Amino acid sequence: MKKYHSPRVADVKLNDPVFAPRIDTAIRKTIPACIRKCHETGRFEAFKLNRYEGMPKLPHFFWDSDVAKVIEGMALALELRPCAELEAELEKYVELIISAQQPDGYLNIVFTTQQKDQRWKNLFDHHELYCAGHLMEAAVAHFNATGRRNFLDCMSRYADYIASVFGHGKNRIPGYPGHEEIELALCKLAQATGNRAYFELAAYFVNERGQDPNYFRQEHPRLAEQDLKNRQAHKPVREQTDADGHAVRAVYLYSGMADVAAEFNDAELFKACENLWQSIVNHRLYVTGGIGSTQAGEAFTVDYHLPNDSVYAESCAAIGLVFFARRMLNLTGDGRYADVMEQTLYNGALSGISLDGEHFFYANLLEVNDNTFSHGYIDKTRQEWFNCSCCPTNYCRFLPQLGTFAWSLGEHEIRLDIPAAGTLANGIEVSGDYPCNGNIRIRFTEHGTFKFGLRIPGWCEHYELKLNGAPCLAKPSAGYITLDREWQTGDELALELSMPVRPLYAHGKVTSNNGRLALARGPLVYALESVDNGRIIPQLLIPAEQEFTLTEAPGLPPGTVAISGRALKEEFGNESLYSTAAPTCSECTFTAIPYALWQNRGASDMAVWIRACR
Amino acid sequence: MKKYHSPRVADVKLNDPVFAPRIDTAIRKTIPACIRKCHETGRFEAFKLNRYEGMPKLPHFFWDSDVAKVIEGMALALELRPCAELEAELEKYVELIISAQQPDGYLNIVFTTQQKDQRWKNLFDHHELYCAGHLMEAAVAHFNATGRRNFLDCMSRYADYIASVFGHGKNRIPGYPGHEEIELALCKLAQATGNRAYFELAAYFVNERGQDPNYFRQEHPRLAEQDLKNRQAHKPVREQTDADGHAVRAVYLYSGMADVAAEFNDAELFKACENLWQSIVNHRLYVTGGIGSTQAGEAFTVDYHLPNDSVYAESCAAIGLVFFARRMLNLTGDGRYADVMEQTLYNGALSGISLDGEHFFYANLLEVNDNTFSHGYIDKTRQEWFNCSCCPTNYCRFLPQLGTFAWSLGEHEIRLDIPAAGTLANGIEVSGDYPCNGNIRIRFTEHGTFKFGLRIPGWCEHYELKLNGAPCLAKPSAGYITLDREWQTGDELALELSMPVRPLYAHGKVTSNNGRLALARGPLVYALESVDNGRIIPQLLIPAEQEFTLTEAPGLPPGTVAISGRALKEEFGNESLYSTAAPTCSECTFTAIPYALWQNRGASDMAVWIRACR
Repeated sequence: MKKYHSPRVADVKLNDPVFAPRIDTAIRKTIPACIRKCHETGRFEAFKLNRYEGMPKLPHFFWDSDVAKVIEGMALALELRPCAELEAELEKYVELIISAQQPDGYLNIVFTTQQKDQRWKNLFDHHELYCAGHLMEAAVAHFNATGRRNFLDCMSRYADYIASVFGHGKNRIPGYPGHEEIELALCKLAQATGNRAYFELAAYFVNERGQDPNYFRQEHPRLAEQDLKNRQAHKPVREQTDADGHAVRAVYLYSGMADVAAEFNDAELFKACENLWQSIVNHRLYVTGGIGSTQAGEAFTVDYHLPNDSVYAESCAAIGLVFFARRMLNLTGDGRYADVMEQTLYNGALSGISLDGEHFFYANLLEVNDNTFSHGYIDKTRQEWFNCSCCPTNYCRFLPQLGTFAWSLGEHEIRLDIPAAGTLANGIEVSGDYPCNGNIRIRFTEHGTFKFGLRIPGWCEHYELKLNGAPCLAKPSAGYITLDREWQTGDELALELSMPVRPLYAHGKVTSNNGRLALARGPLVYALESVDNGRIIPQLLIPAEQEFTLTEAPGLPPGTVAISGRALKEEFGNESLYSTAAPTCSECTFTAIPYALWQNRGASDMAVWIRACR
Repeated sequence: MKKYHSPRVADVKLNDPVFAPRIDTAIRKTIPACIRKCHETGRFEAFKLNRYEGMPKLPHFFWDSDVAKVIEGMALALELRPCAELEAELEKYVELIISAQQPDGYLNIVFTTQQKDQRWKNLFDHHELYCAGHLMEAAVAHFNATGRRNFLDCMSRYADYIASVFGHGKNRIPGYPGHEEIELALCKLAQATGNRAYFELAAYFVNERGQDPNYFRQEHPRLAEQDLKNRQAHKPVREQTDADGHAVRAVYLYSGMADVAAEFNDAELFKACENLWQSIVNHRLYVTGGIGSTQAGEAFTVDYHLPNDSVYAESCAAIGLVFFARRMLNLTGDGRYADVMEQTLYNGALSGISLDGEHFFYANLLEVNDNTFSHGYIDKTRQEWFNCSCCPTNYCRFLPQLGTFAWSLGEHEIRLDIPAAGTLANGIEVSGDYPCNGNIRIRFTEHGTFKFGLRIPGWCEHYELKLNGAPCLAKPSAGYITLDREWQTGDELALELSMPVRPLYAHGKVTSNNGRLALARGPLVYALESVDNGRIIPQLLIPAEQEFTLTEAPGLPPGTVAISGRALKEEFGNESLYSTAAPTCSECTFTAIPYALWQNRGASDMAVWIRACR
């Protein structure tokens, strides 16, 4: 069933203006910063299993996962940029983790120390299987980077033990994780080890979820339907058609479902993935690629409910959506998935981390001003760390993988999904400054016969393609132009993607955006910041019909394109809360910058959706 | 300090088109329905104190207050419409309540039975003093209606006991209620009994609140600042300038503060009331008179944060704001307070109950459609009852008092605050169909020399006043025209308040209303329902500059005035969540009805703030 796979991390080297600096900063800043935080907070220390009953409890029970994601990031960084010092440090942590494994294979810093008696006792709330999943992903990355099997073997023992505990047999627990993640991790472990038992275990977790009698209801008899929905366990996954509940858990589950569907050629399960995909993309997706409309339960809500100020759109959920999109793209080769993967990558995923690599949003708002208020406190500036620090540590392992989202590899086929400048080990060089501009050159540096696929993004209405200077009239199918030929060293494709400023409108049922427009250019969604426009953004109206100007964005990395244009500014004559005096309008200008880069020049008001003049 | 007092309930008889039918329905329907529910749920039964340790706990610990409010409503109804049957039933419940009083004076159905050991142990969460306050209010109403002292004496004993328990002396509890209410109730009890000790106790509760060391922090060491703020206990009340926390608790407290300020001529405390009033009115008040912008903590949020769909605006909070406004009006005679009292009465307070008197909103949304979503479930149709049923029972005692908000009595002075048709016992008759129209006639049926004050509402830009047919040129001061003369039997004032349709605009910082207008006429705020307009309300735009038409509102009580006019309807060409295709517009018409009457013709989408054409 699966048509494509992603390249290895080491096989893609980028030098584009967006991804490449983010990867560099991740390696130089984000990972070291998160390592420091893990030390400062005692997260590494906890693997010494020196906490006992009676000591204060850890602030939460998924520290293991934070460490695992940092380790995974170190391994990916190492794969990308070999470095003896980094490797030595990584090995030290790996050995520490391995040392915490119990004789039966179990490995968890909370439930082997202070809360021993709670092992597997509360799958709904405790994150044991989630932590196990992240450790497995880390072990696979460590194996890929170093070739050493110590961590991989450790995690295989853990997976074997888990396989002996869960399932339908006698003395087995017929449960599944409250926070999904292990499903996709087991598929990675199966691929790395060649042990198909781990695919089987992943399939068990996927298929058992939400079956009747409901395991979570057996654990917690008073759970409401809403609680089960938050964990995607209100019905069997094959029957789920709406993307519901906790957004991160949802897309991690859907990614695992796609992996299982691919492995078992399971068309029914793939159809469920497709239904859930449609639910997200047609009804529950922010224009930035963010998902999860409410902080309450960090969850999806209802169709078309996409508030800009009380949005949650957790960074981890955007990252998870990229994972899900990547898998659906690999399964089908359909450019629809690449479009959403790209939209999420360049906007809602990168918005969660500062350009300096050391500050993070947990929630990615689309509108911030003095009266932005969610139902609880939400940061309006990026923070160095959180008590629940899943997002910073997720960036440690997400950013070094960015290059892998640019290419797909198939049978005698290579596809360029995102034309970010750089090289693929298979002998192809991409140049240009995409996504800042749409002129892309692709040079073939090795001779070979294969299909070369070139994505024409869904947002692109006009493009020109030349092969060695001559117009190439091949038409895209499902978002890709495919050229099947014997490539000569020195062959060159020149692709020009037209990138006008595109005013976007939301569906009429998205009431928060009625009468509003968002500006996009290429794959980038733009936002207005008060840093550029003054603290009057809610008072601005932008005429959609105008010649927008492209300028250098002030105070942002060279090459960043800002959009400027004409606007109207409403002014209010008095300070009354309500009045019969209509606001008056005066002409002004506005400047918009790429959404992902907002709040990199200090605290600022911001809005993506601006009122449109009509 | 106090300039005016309200008339007795029995002294105002109304026959206007809005209040009078609501009072009638309250007596015929609401009170009997709530009595039934109190029986069905066991609320009356519980006063037999036959629940013991080991039985299932009551669903919440303020059932006493529900019963108290129903009893208070029965007493007010009796005062308004003497009825032997009602009186007999009332007396039965009163005796039942009295029978539950403990030898030391304590009276509470939860903390004398199942949770005996918890008496006064958790003032922050348990509602003992709140329940006591409502029982005291009921006792005063019962005394006023029947002249019998049995309940009043019972509650005096309870108040004496409370006075012996709380305060700064040895073995006293230096605490105060987690849910305010007893402060204003003690002032009523003091007035009814003439016992000033109850004023002193009210003053103690007001003044002790939020003092350092914080009593609630002593009870619950881990309380956050936000938790204290939710209870208005984050600082002493005299230092509070923002209306913060749980909205119902806030306005009950402020009402008690105003009572204490009046009794003790306490200018500093009055200033605090005024500051908190300003905070509400200038920054935190819905155009409907609703307060409390979020369901989380049922609370105020931040200045200018007034979302229409995720609003809470609890019915009880609107009722409490009327109480606070009434007290500030009595203290000062300033029409500013009457304006907000009237705004809240006719809109956000009456919206909480159906015309049939048996269905209730807990939260009063200003926008409802398929994708309205708060952080938890909020009813979009009125319900018969709630698990926490404070709002229905509050209407039992609020509606019979409506007439008392129409008049103020001062020294040799009578003031008409709201010109609802009816009679004041002091020999004044008002006719007309206010608030449906602005023609008001006031006839004096007795001879007498006194000042007569006539409010010119803040919303009114043009009016004409005639005395016995001759133009009266007296100008209003602080919202009232005062005529000081010897009134003859048959004297007649004719007041014509001009009532054009007024498009209202919100302050520019209220981002949820940028680019929107609300329609008002006289004191009534209007809303569009899908019942009249189709399910396209978010797609409508209304030009502010147009000749609006007044029509009979279809399916609503005769005399109800609807507003019709021209509108534009946006149409979307495709089903994509986001698209570059701008919506197109076509012309249509709209019909708006008074906000308070929405959802009386079945489930419906609704919006108060509609996009304005410019």
